[in-house]
Amino acid sequence: MGRRDRDVSALFKAARQGHRGSIAQLLSAIERGGSGARDVGRLAYPLAGSGFSVGVTGAPGAGKSTLTSALVAELRRSDPAHVAVLAVDPSSPFTGGAILGDRVRMQDHALDEGVFIRSMATRGNLGGLALAAPEAVRLLAAVGFGQVLIETVGVGQVEVDVVGATDTTVVVVNPGWGDAVQANKAGLMEIADVFVINKADRAGTADTRQDLENMLALSAHPSEGGWQVPIIETVATTNTGLTDLAAAIAGHRSHIEASGELVERRARRVDDEMRQIVLARLEQQAALLTTGKTYDAVRAEVAGRRLDPWEAARQLIESEQTTSDTE
Amino acid sequence: MGRRDRDVSALFKAARQGHRGSIAQLLSAIERGGSGARDVGRLAYPLAGSGFSVGVTGAPGAGKSTLTSALVAELRRSDPAHVAVLAVDPSSPFTGGAILGDRVRMQDHALDEGVFIRSMATRGNLGGLALAAPEAVRLLAAVGFGQVLIETVGVGQVEVDVVGATDTTVVVVNPGWGDAVQANKAGLMEIADVFVINKADRAGTADTRQDLENMLALSAHPSEGGWQVPIIETVATTNTGLTDLAAAIAGHRSHIEASGELVERRARRVDDEMRQIVLARLEQQAALLTTGKTYDAVRAEVAGRRLDPWEAARQLIESEQTTSDTE
Repeated sequence: MGRRDRDVSALFKAARQGHRGSIAQLLSAIERGGSGARDVGRLAYPLAGSGFSVGVTGAPGAGKSTLTSALVAELRRSDPAHVAVLAVDPSSPFTGGAILGDRVRMQDHALDEGVFIRSMATRGNLGGLALAAPEAVRLLAAVGFGQVLIETVGVGQVEVDVVGATDTTVVVVNPGWGDAVQANKAGLMEIADVFVINKADRAGTADTRQDLENMLALSAHPSEGGWQVPIIETVATTNTGLTDLAAAIAGHRSHIEASGELVERRARRVDDEMRQIVLARLEQQAALLTTGKTYDAVRAEVAGRRLDPWEAARQLIESEQTTSDTE
Repeated sequence: MGRRDRDVSALFKAARQGHRGSIAQLLSAIERGGSGARDVGRLAYPLAGSGFSVGVTGAPGAGKSTLTSALVAELRRSDPAHVAVLAVDPSSPFTGGAILGDRVRMQDHALDEGVFIRSMATRGNLGGLALAAPEAVRLLAAVGFGQVLIETVGVGQVEVDVVGATDTTVVVVNPGWGDAVQANKAGLMEIADVFVINKADRAGTADTRQDLENMLALSAHPSEGGWQVPIIETVATTNTGLTDLAAAIAGHRSHIEASGELVERRARRVDDEMRQIVLARLEQQAALLTTGKTYDAVRAEVAGRRLDPWEAARQLIESEQTTSDTE
């Protein structure tokens, strides 16, 4: 066991005892990727089965942050489980810790040791946020957060993928013409287990509910098994409707636990994840193979028509694999 | 030298002597892909430097086939070089020989031993048409066709990529409002070395010319070096303007030969091709790695939380590379 492993082990032990600084350091290691992240994953994965993950997504301005913060307070009232919030933002270059928004939101839960909030941004590393986020969720589950909420800033493809890879996915819209249509376009109809119409004190709530109901009736929801996607109305700023939302999430959880779908979903997700990791690793190999001295030498042979491109590609791949075997 | 190599060598020798059946068989081998295609490539590549390739693309219905056929006749009048035509259609599942359209067009050149016309469709193989087409062009050049025309059916991404990877790219539009705009949208502005307004006996030709000129003035053409993209008016059905078109193509050829851009273009293309081959091979590996018994065994370990997904991916990649080393 090397120095690095010991360090990660010590951090992990401290994190399991509730030491917040250690949790933050382990999350930073995941964000940075590479062997440090692998060490964390190895420790966290066997212990991550007990955590339940909830994704919260929707267009910017839908009030997701306020809603998530209010949901955290509600969950803490109704459930003994500790709650962690991971805010992912693939568009932000910022990495390695809490951003201003976190600190502001943290104040709502500053006195509650059972709440942990953290941002996670793009890392330059293998597979990006789509592969880092599930690792972070598993770490948080492994160190004792029974519920992990993932919140996104927008509804880009990466964000939809990340949030869709949770146990229960909450999609937030606002009252107003076209919001349900937009949700449908962004692929949110397919991943929603629970719909929230936030800012439901505004005009147009009934129309938006009708639009959502119509679209739900038309869409073939993949998480079938008889689950009827509920539509919850909330006003997050006044804590209205949060009890209903917490109940809807708990209801979905009970449903997929009882039907066996939770186990199936998780197996599918980890399967997808492995495929993505394999592909990301091989793409990394491809990038390495087509730069550097060996590549330049091979390219010169091809330019001189002494080697055809296919044979050249074969030689490049073989040379790399021989090299990595002897390393 | 195995049986297979001898067969391909014999075919290649016959093809170099002008035997059409052998050329067709070698093209089919390229279309099928795999080791047969690699054998053909190995023989053709060293001899392919002397052929000049011309791409012809444009929206369906622009009259590309008729124009190409008329261009072939014109080139045969003005130039001693033999001419081959490769018609690529990524949307067609048909492979392995001449289709009806070819036979009809062949009749125009049935008495000319210096013309060869052949269709090439999607093959299920590694890298698809984007990687098969340049191989086919090189084979045709290697067996003595000094000019190889590649014509596409439509303007999909694959077709634009294939035609953009030629020495001189001809983009065909028709008179009429919006055709130049469509060409711009399809990414044809960037790849055009010569524009043709075919069916130029129709109304709107002057407007379309004006549109093209405006867009050319705005676009940063990558094949700079002082080349002014000409706009040629043709009526392919009456052989009008074909002399101008042949002259424009010859002019572009002289220009890029003199400026050294031809050598640069080809080096860039073969570079792109190698990268694509490496990536396609590794993607194929990834697909193999995530199916089969080894994968199922690893997946069971992951599901049982005895192995984390990253370690699982690493083991899959290593197992494969060890296997291929001992093969």
